[in-house]
Amino acid sequence: MNAVNDFQATLDPSRKGWLDSANDPASDFPIQNLPFGIFSDRRNDARRVGVAIGDQIVDLAALQAAGLLSAPGQQVFARDALNDFIALGRAAWRSVRIQLSLLLARDTPALRDDAALRAKVLVAQADARLYLPVQIPGYTDFYSSKEHATNVGAMFRDPKNALLPNWTEMPIGYNGRASSVVVSGTPVRRPNGQLKLPDQERPVFGACRKLDIELEMGFIVGGGNALGEPIASADAEAHIFGMVLLNDWSARDIQQWEYVPLGPFNSKGFATTISPWIVTLDALEPFRVAQPLQEPQPLAYLRHEGEHAFDIHLEVTLRPQHAREASTITRTNFKHMYWTMAQQLAHQTVSGCNTRVGDLMGSGTISGPTDDSFGSLLELTWNGKKPLELKEGGTRAFIEDGDELTLTGWCQGDGYRVGFGRCAGEILPARS
Amino acid sequence: MNAVNDFQATLDPSRKGWLDSANDPASDFPIQNLPFGIFSDRRNDARRVGVAIGDQIVDLAALQAAGLLSAPGQQVFARDALNDFIALGRAAWRSVRIQLSLLLARDTPALRDDAALRAKVLVAQADARLYLPVQIPGYTDFYSSKEHATNVGAMFRDPKNALLPNWTEMPIGYNGRASSVVVSGTPVRRPNGQLKLPDQERPVFGACRKLDIELEMGFIVGGGNALGEPIASADAEAHIFGMVLLNDWSARDIQQWEYVPLGPFNSKGFATTISPWIVTLDALEPFRVAQPLQEPQPLAYLRHEGEHAFDIHLEVTLRPQHAREASTITRTNFKHMYWTMAQQLAHQTVSGCNTRVGDLMGSGTISGPTDDSFGSLLELTWNGKKPLELKEGGTRAFIEDGDELTLTGWCQGDGYRVGFGRCAGEILPARS
Repeated sequence: MNAVNDFQATLDPSRKGWLDSANDPASDFPIQNLPFGIFSDRRNDARRVGVAIGDQIVDLAALQAAGLLSAPGQQVFARDALNDFIALGRAAWRSVRIQLSLLLARDTPALRDDAALRAKVLVAQADARLYLPVQIPGYTDFYSSKEHATNVGAMFRDPKNALLPNWTEMPIGYNGRASSVVVSGTPVRRPNGQLKLPDQERPVFGACRKLDIELEMGFIVGGGNALGEPIASADAEAHIFGMVLLNDWSARDIQQWEYVPLGPFNSKGFATTISPWIVTLDALEPFRVAQPLQEPQPLAYLRHEGEHAFDIHLEVTLRPQHAREASTITRTNFKHMYWTMAQQLAHQTVSGCNTRVGDLMGSGTISGPTDDSFGSLLELTWNGKKPLELKEGGTRAFIEDGDELTLTGWCQGDGYRVGFGRCAGEILPARS
Repeated sequence: MNAVNDFQATLDPSRKGWLDSANDPASDFPIQNLPFGIFSDRRNDARRVGVAIGDQIVDLAALQAAGLLSAPGQQVFARDALNDFIALGRAAWRSVRIQLSLLLARDTPALRDDAALRAKVLVAQADARLYLPVQIPGYTDFYSSKEHATNVGAMFRDPKNALLPNWTEMPIGYNGRASSVVVSGTPVRRPNGQLKLPDQERPVFGACRKLDIELEMGFIVGGGNALGEPIASADAEAHIFGMVLLNDWSARDIQQWEYVPLGPFNSKGFATTISPWIVTLDALEPFRVAQPLQEPQPLAYLRHEGEHAFDIHLEVTLRPQHAREASTITRTNFKHMYWTMAQQLAHQTVSGCNTRVGDLMGSGTISGPTDDSFGSLLELTWNGKKPLELKEGGTRAFIEDGDELTLTGWCQGDGYRVGFGRCAGEILPARS
C-alpha cells in the first residue's frame, strides 16, 4: 500500500461503514464523502471541526485528543473555523481523509467496538448546531453560466446580442461582500433600498419587491498565492480545498437601478448563504466530467488539459410560510458551467491579485439549457411575467416574506451519493 | 476640567510639545494630530502600536508597560494591527488621545525629563518600519466626486449625458479586493491582463499599457453594525475611527474591456496602497466644512444636518526612475467630494449589510473643478491625448515602469498642519 492507493481506496464505491446510516443510498454523507464543517452540540458549546458521516458528526478535536487521529498541526481541530486545518495543505487533507475512511470502515474495530469512545467522538447531527465553516477573508462571485448570462442579457440589454463580447473571452466576475456570508439556516431579512419605479421621475426608498435567489456553488481556496504571483490554470485545482452550495440572494429592483457602471452592490451585499459542509475536491474526484466546448479557444493563460467540470445534480425548493410541502422550482447541474473553477482562479490571479486560505469563490448562477433548469426566479418567471405554480401556497413571481428557499446538491455514485446537505434560508419581512 | 474640555484642549492650536520636531509648522505630526499606526524598529522587530509625533514614534505598548498610559483593554497595543484597540470604541480612542496630548505637552515633565524612559518609548521614524495599520476585513470603494464621474462619463459614455441618473441619488460604490491592500512603500508590479486593441477582433494578453493612479482617501470603520441593522446618516461619523490616503491603482485598458456589466475586477484587484498613519476623525474636527450643495435633495435616509466635509489639501507627485526631482501632477482638496463619508456608510448599510472594525471605505477619485486638480492621469491627460510635461523625465500619458507616485495630504491650521504623511509606490515591470 502507498498513499496514492490509500487515497484511491477512500473513493471505492464498494467501501461501506459500520454506521448503518452512512450506508443508506439516500444519505448525503456516505464514507466516500467525509465533508468538513464546524459544529457545537448540547453537551459542549465549544465550536470545533467535525466531519459528517451518515446522520452523525465525527468530532475531530475529540478524535485527536483520544489519539485516533494524527495531523501535523497542533490543535487545528479545536477551532471555530477550518482555516488553520486547511492551511496545512493538501497532503494533510488527504492524510486526515485516509485516516477517517479507515476508522469508519466496516472492518475497523477501534471505534466501532468501543462504546465509550464512540460516545465521546460521535455527535448526532440532530443534536448539533452548524456554523460558517471558514473565516472568509475574501469573496468573489463569478458569472460563468452561458445560459444565465444569455438570459439576463436578453432581458435587460439586447435579445439579439445578449452575450457581451468579453463574456466568451474570460470568466467575468466581481468582488462580493464577505461580511454578510451566513451559514444555512440563518434567516435573511428582505433588504430596503432605492427602487426606480417606471412611472416616477425619482427613485423611492422601500422594501425590495423583486427578491430572488441565485443557485450557485462556491469553492474554498485551500492554498493562496502571494501578491504578484499568479496561479496557472493547470495548477489551480491544487489550490482548491472543496465546494459548498451557495445562494447569492439578489434584490433585482435595487440591482437594476444601481448596477451601472460599477456593478451590483447593495442588491447583493445584504446576505449570501452557504451550506455548512465543505465537500473536498478529493471526494468529488470520481464525478469529474468534461467541461462544455469553449469556442473561441481561450487565451493561453486560461487553457488546461483534461476534464475540469463536475457532475453535480442541483435542486431548489420553495416552501411558503405555514405550508407543509415545498415545491421544487428548478433542477439543473453544475456540469453546465462554461468556465471551470480552475479558469476562474487563474483569471482572478493573473493580474497578480493574491488569494488567501478560506477565500470563497462563487460560480455564478447555474442555469441549464431548458426553461425548467434556470438558477433564478428572474429567469424561471422571466422577470415576473410567468409566475410559477407552487404545489401549495399559490404562485410566485419573486420571493414572498416567510418563504423558505432550499438548495440541495449531490453527485450520484453507484449505490451511494456524495451530497452537499442543505443551503436554506427563510425570508423575514423588511425592517420598517 | 471634564472629558469634553480635555478633548477640546487636544485640538488647541496653541498647544506645543516638548519635542521640537513636533512644533515645526511644516511637520505632518504636531501635537494636535497624534495619528495611529503599526511599526517595528531595529532594536525590536515585534510589530506594535505607535503614534507619530514630529519625527518620532511613541511606542504605546512600551508606554503602557511603563505605567504611563491606561486603556481599558489588556495588551491592545502589543499587536500587529490596530483592530483590537479600535474595537474598544470612541471613549477609549479619546482617552488615549487626551493622555498622549498631555504627556507630550511642553509643560508635562514625566517623559520630557526622563531620558531613560524616553529611550524606551520613543523611536525615530527614520529607524522604523511601518506596516498596514489595520487588518482589513472588507474594502469598499465609492465614486463620490461629481467632477470625476462627469469626466469619466464624458470620456467613455456620452459627453452630453456624462453623469448617469443614479449618480445624484446615491453614493455609487462597489466592493474592492481587500487582500491586495498594501502599505505605502510597497512596490507595485504592473499587472498583466486582457487588452482589447482597437484594430483586433479578439483581446490579447499582455502588460497593462494604461496604468494609472486614483487619488483617494479612505476611512476606517471603528464600530461596525450587525447584519440587518443599518447605520443612520446622522450617527455614521461615530462609527468612523479615522482616515488615510489611498491610491486605487487602476489598469485602464484592462478595466475598459472587463467592466461591463459587473464592474471593475482585475483592473483594480492587483494593488491598492494606503498611508501608514490613521488620522483620527477627532484630530480632523477643526477642519470640518460644509459639503457641496446636494441637488436634488437626497432621499431621507441619506440626509444629515450640519457640516460633514473636511478641508484636506491633497497633492500627487510623480518621480521617474533615476530622476532626482519629482513633479507635482495635481493639487486638489477632499472638500470637493459630493457625497460625505457619513452618507457612504449609511448607504452601504441601508440594505442591512454589516460592517466590521477595520473595514476600509475608499472615497473614490478626488477630482477638483479645474483641469489641474483632477485625481487620475486618465483625466489629467484626457485618456493619454494630452501628456503631462514633467520637470525631469519627459512627458507622461500614463505611468511608466520605475515611476514613483506619491500622495500627500494635510489640513492647514494656524501655525501647524495635521498631515497624513505619504502614500507612495514605485512601479515594477510586469511579470514576463
